[in-house]
Amino acid sequence: MYSYEQLLSFSKNIFLKIGCNEADAGLAAKVLISADIRGVDSHGIARLIGYVRLWEANRINAKPSIKISYETPSTATIDGDSGLGLVVAPKAMQVAIDKARQVGSGWVSVKNSNHYGIAGHHALLAVENDMIGISMTNASPLVAPTCSLERLLGTNPIAVAIPAGKQPPFVADFATTTAANGKLEILQRKGEEAPLGWIQNASGNPSTDPHALKSGGALLPLGGDREHGSHKGYCLGAVVDIFSAVFSGANYGPWVPPFVSFLPLAPDPVGEGIGHFFGAIRVDAFRPASEFKQHMDNWIERFRSAKPTQENDKVLIPGDPEREMEAIRLKEGIPLLPAVVKDLEELGRKFQLPFHLKG
Amino acid sequence: MYSYEQLLSFSKNIFLKIGCNEADAGLAAKVLISADIRGVDSHGIARLIGYVRLWEANRINAKPSIKISYETPSTATIDGDSGLGLVVAPKAMQVAIDKARQVGSGWVSVKNSNHYGIAGHHALLAVENDMIGISMTNASPLVAPTCSLERLLGTNPIAVAIPAGKQPPFVADFATTTAANGKLEILQRKGEEAPLGWIQNASGNPSTDPHALKSGGALLPLGGDREHGSHKGYCLGAVVDIFSAVFSGANYGPWVPPFVSFLPLAPDPVGEGIGHFFGAIRVDAFRPASEFKQHMDNWIERFRSAKPTQENDKVLIPGDPEREMEAIRLKEGIPLLPAVVKDLEELGRKFQLPFHLKG
Repeated sequence: MYSYEQLLSFSKNIFLKIGCNEADAGLAAKVLISADIRGVDSHGIARLIGYVRLWEANRINAKPSIKISYETPSTATIDGDSGLGLVVAPKAMQVAIDKARQVGSGWVSVKNSNHYGIAGHHALLAVENDMIGISMTNASPLVAPTCSLERLLGTNPIAVAIPAGKQPPFVADFATTTAANGKLEILQRKGEEAPLGWIQNASGNPSTDPHALKSGGALLPLGGDREHGSHKGYCLGAVVDIFSAVFSGANYGPWVPPFVSFLPLAPDPVGEGIGHFFGAIRVDAFRPASEFKQHMDNWIERFRSAKPTQENDKVLIPGDPEREMEAIRLKEGIPLLPAVVKDLEELGRKFQLPFHLKG
Repeated sequence: MYSYEQLLSFSKNIFLKIGCNEADAGLAAKVLISADIRGVDSHGIARLIGYVRLWEANRINAKPSIKISYETPSTATIDGDSGLGLVVAPKAMQVAIDKARQVGSGWVSVKNSNHYGIAGHHALLAVENDMIGISMTNASPLVAPTCSLERLLGTNPIAVAIPAGKQPPFVADFATTTAANGKLEILQRKGEEAPLGWIQNASGNPSTDPHALKSGGALLPLGGDREHGSHKGYCLGAVVDIFSAVFSGANYGPWVPPFVSFLPLAPDPVGEGIGHFFGAIRVDAFRPASEFKQHMDNWIERFRSAKPTQENDKVLIPGDPEREMEAIRLKEGIPLLPAVVKDLEELGRKFQLPFHLKG
């Protein structure tokens, strides 16, 4: 088990070593470890070595000049200048928050960025400002639209965070595929098969092989197949792609750059880097804040107290599992897989920053 | 086969008979028949008798005073005054469009409304104004959230319409359930079973009985079961509910009034009527319009030309099937089921407006 503070400090030091300034290194580390602390292990410190490799491949600029390149009173486009997505994203959300403070809601599309950590973190920044937060990003193509043999979309997550009064916030945060890539990796490690509806093989047929992606297969949009509404998951992934990249001028569809540095960039980019989209809406944009919060509490209480089916204990509110995990991990620490520890030790050696097992 | 003009004119005359003014009757008819012409038969003239029955039950006000009850520069809440959703919705979208013209984007939440026809119609109003349109509505509770025995959400559709340059618009329009209620009705008529993942029975177990809803069962959120991501469909339906009703002051969750007049209203309403949510974003809100349209064309062309799987001819762009249907039905007419014709004849007799089979 590793403490939150230990992982935060190690990550920050690595970001300092690659040339980030003090503030950006601290911000990037905080965003990165927010995934580990909430139980989204696939998007946290396990990716630290991936960011470093992107920096080594000159695909990340540690000293970006992040700026608004276009705007209206309620909208803005931000050029991330190839900065860490972990830094670009919270700064872009801040612009959305500032605009919401002025005109009720703020909407920001981002180009020239890269992987931004967990979508939910950025949405929650709005909640701290008494606003509803929306966060989405495109990602490299692993997903075949309905009827397609080709992979054209990323797992393109959407997060929506909504503050309440006495209740903790509602936080939806999900990939627009049936299952995220992290879940496939778990099956690969265990040597187990995937349920039908998660993946198709290189011929476009349903597959239970969790390794099918490596041999030309694809993840499937939420719904899994046409009969179960995969065209709806395709619509969602497409909207995320368009809002994140066709709005901003980032790469979209099959042109989105990969996270891993060993894969080449598309030879004919249609934009700059990957794209994100953020929204912030004041809780008092549609009615007085006290009324909104009272009814949001009532909504949450009614759904949480719904009668569960026999095999379930309770009905969850989106955000409940991550919040419960955060409480546990802050107290008990964060477990890391041996492969992740090995990567961190390698990073430590490279940058003369030893990564030690906790006491 | 019935012509578009015939169904439009008949519907308009019925709306006049219940007391709508000339403009509102024409608008309501246009919105209603936009469903039939696009092939969404469940939401078109088949529902005309339902609106009349709601009016007879004093749940629809044919002469509403629709007004903005709260606003910021980019947002507004509209009180529909129990008017026809078919009239309230396009007027609310117009407010979103007007705000977008001023500040880049406009967002409108609506209370005190009722069924608004097809979500996509309202989103497309923005496209006519060179804007991206977003439309969603809550609906009466037919859907059990993940792990819930109780029905707490409606089929809560989302529509997103995005204009391009040379290409026709991208129009996503879908219920946030695996399958909409209309598809169950088709199976009921045919005496066929439903696929697993569409419904649960009164005990909360997966069911293939298309009649299960009538005996205490429920529709399932997009995803179908936990293993296939039904918690994501639950998140989507919940966000639609909150944006449509907790923002505006409409009823939410299990309190949303039913469309059919023979079902009672919840005894302890938490708001007024049902709720909708609309958004309009100028195509030049994030970059010059010409650049946006050129890249949107490129997006559409790339996805449409993707290599399909063996058993499919092509990859569709959201909106393609409905647009193709519209072209066919404008030319060849609109087929109606005998039960629908019977309802229209009944309405004709009631209001001295004969409904004739087309010459």
